[in-house]
Amino acid sequence: MVRLKGFTELTPIEKALELFFRRVNPQKLESELVPVQNAYGRVVAKDVIAKTDLPPFDRSAVDGYAVKAESTFGASPFQPKTLKIVEKEVIGEGEAKPIWTGQPLPGGSDAVIMIEHTRKLNETEIAVLKAVAKWENVSSKGEDVKAGETAIKAGTRLKPQHLGLLAALGLEKVEVTRKPKVAIFATGNELVELGKIPSKNQIIETNRLIISWLCRELGAEPVDLGIVGDDETLIREKILEGVEKADVVVSTGGTSVGKADLVPLSLRSIDSSSIIVHGMAMRPAMPTALAVIKNKPVLVLSGNPVAAMIGFEVFAKPLILKMLGAEGETRPRLKAKITRRVAGVLGRKVFLRVKVYEKNGEFYADPSRTTGSGILTTMTKANGYVIIPENREGLENGETVTVHVFDNIPKLNGA
Amino acid sequence: MVRLKGFTELTPIEKALELFFRRVNPQKLESELVPVQNAYGRVVAKDVIAKTDLPPFDRSAVDGYAVKAESTFGASPFQPKTLKIVEKEVIGEGEAKPIWTGQPLPGGSDAVIMIEHTRKLNETEIAVLKAVAKWENVSSKGEDVKAGETAIKAGTRLKPQHLGLLAALGLEKVEVTRKPKVAIFATGNELVELGKIPSKNQIIETNRLIISWLCRELGAEPVDLGIVGDDETLIREKILEGVEKADVVVSTGGTSVGKADLVPLSLRSIDSSSIIVHGMAMRPAMPTALAVIKNKPVLVLSGNPVAAMIGFEVFAKPLILKMLGAEGETRPRLKAKITRRVAGVLGRKVFLRVKVYEKNGEFYADPSRTTGSGILTTMTKANGYVIIPENREGLENGETVTVHVFDNIPKLNGA
Repeated sequence: MVRLKGFTELTPIEKALELFFRRVNPQKLESELVPVQNAYGRVVAKDVIAKTDLPPFDRSAVDGYAVKAESTFGASPFQPKTLKIVEKEVIGEGEAKPIWTGQPLPGGSDAVIMIEHTRKLNETEIAVLKAVAKWENVSSKGEDVKAGETAIKAGTRLKPQHLGLLAALGLEKVEVTRKPKVAIFATGNELVELGKIPSKNQIIETNRLIISWLCRELGAEPVDLGIVGDDETLIREKILEGVEKADVVVSTGGTSVGKADLVPLSLRSIDSSSIIVHGMAMRPAMPTALAVIKNKPVLVLSGNPVAAMIGFEVFAKPLILKMLGAEGETRPRLKAKITRRVAGVLGRKVFLRVKVYEKNGEFYADPSRTTGSGILTTMTKANGYVIIPENREGLENGETVTVHVFDNIPKLNGA
Repeated sequence: MVRLKGFTELTPIEKALELFFRRVNPQKLESELVPVQNAYGRVVAKDVIAKTDLPPFDRSAVDGYAVKAESTFGASPFQPKTLKIVEKEVIGEGEAKPIWTGQPLPGGSDAVIMIEHTRKLNETEIAVLKAVAKWENVSSKGEDVKAGETAIKAGTRLKPQHLGLLAALGLEKVEVTRKPKVAIFATGNELVELGKIPSKNQIIETNRLIISWLCRELGAEPVDLGIVGDDETLIREKILEGVEKADVVVSTGGTSVGKADLVPLSLRSIDSSSIIVHGMAMRPAMPTALAVIKNKPVLVLSGNPVAAMIGFEVFAKPLILKMLGAEGETRPRLKAKITRRVAGVLGRKVFLRVKVYEKNGEFYADPSRTTGSGILTTMTKANGYVIIPENREGLENGETVTVHVFDNIPKLNGA
């Protein structure tokens, strides 16, 4: 049976997310201990408090000579002061001990004079050409992090520098939020797996691959449930399998009002399920639906790969970030000048794919010529998107826009 | 023996890279075939040419009815045209077949009328409220990619959308550049491994961990050679082990002019080696050295973690990108207003760590208060860096600067 009817009402994105989150009430997942060496990209579950000072002792920040600062007072290139080179543990007035960056300060010293500001007179003496203040060129105990301080805040996604800091503090493991599991399936009689030869009217299914990697980029764990045909019962079984196996269920296809609305129909046939929103005031990804089954969120994305990606970006990503406790996370973005006029759609947010580049130190954004939500090259040739607000008929040529960046920004000639 | 002397000359970064690359002549490495499912983050080795059209057939870009365009000519809300709903394979004049997004166009049809522009009169008839042009709402065969066209260019780093496109074209494997191997060791008697309790004057070694992850971020494969003490012979052995096992050798520590210059000294004791540059006109990472042994590049980075990271960014990253064939790759960047005056260093490029944020749609960059190249929190609390040129005494408060972004850009209140 084919029923064709338009959406009677489209919900603005912000409203849809608000309704969705109010109903699903996504919480930060449990945490787990992970060796620091393997914790790259994971999200810190609670504030990491330093147990020791870093650096653990006063150390030199430069190469030069450890001194008592007052031994250098009054020194200048015109009136150098002569100090005696020593190698002993504790130094005194008028003495200088060679030291290099990172070495602990010897006893008695309270400053380091940079090698550039000295001249070696002979094997046992240097001339100091510049006075140093007390603690000058010294990296004090605890200057980086003091014991008891928060070294890394909860919600931080661990980059190489964070791993380095954790290790420097002597931490072998770090408590991170466990990876949300995201069950993914695709619907459609026309779909075949990569590796099979599609017959006439068939196409290769690609949304699961794309969405799996979007999940991994966020630090979530995809659970592939495969392809299911256009059958209400089979789709219902897949949804329930996803609810069983994962924290989030994502489907693609079978959501347009045209195609018998199959996934929403299947959802309606599940007792404990509720469709929260269906039909978004956006382009692409308009036919997205958000649902819930026993507190588990179900995201019904378009079968068109571009619409599925944008739907994931707008609805699945904030959900997953909440589950990770990394809510504030955003894509890199920048301001750029749009290089031609582009039409918007009144009443809908348009996600315009653009190619941003830098030229002579300025950023420009070329809008994609094609808008089709099935045209994957609009994503592969773009490196960012611009959101045209629902109250704008379009963007003017030369207008400054905010670009959300998802790929490399090239520098063109003359840049 | 401790010899203390300053660098007699500092080389500008651009000059150092030019000399380095001229001597090392880094080439793109060999390629390997990788299943598309596992190719995320890899760099495409040669242009991927489509063997088939995408889409493989003319298909509907919307939900609605496939028609002969001329059947709708003249239709308007005031003068609708009535069409007969059919389900047959090939349609004729005055007929409309229900179709949804992505479905192949039935024989005889050359356009699709959107469901929103129709009204169902009864089970067998619709009223068309708007005319469609020929091929309107049709995604034509090959519209995304035509057989014979370049679908993905060599040098592209594969993101989810690229994997999707490769799969859509029926490609199960993709030819990518093999991962460059980067051997990493740290030098210093004061260093202990994470997991051991450092005694007085000892610190935990963290540079190998940081640099390993910087390598993985780029798609290179780190080879950990461990820690070596301040011993010229042992260091020489490590260098030679690295040259044997990897495409690039990176050391940290033992490069300052103070600390007996141990790695450069060891390099000089290797017959086939040549130090190309030592001492850079930059801050931090000034004591970086670039060398070559039998065409294998050796990068001697500072022992200070921040200086090691910046040295890696400036010298190792472009080298690795050349080996991957991804030379044009850059960090995301943006223009921001600096929020206070910062001093530069005449004659040196200063890599200033900043915290960028967005407020009321504008971007601002707070400079780090600390400049110590050993202070890791200047990296963990920052999300980008600004390069202060060598001819500038500093940056003015409110000046617009380019920020190179390495972490999340928060939105502050009111943004």
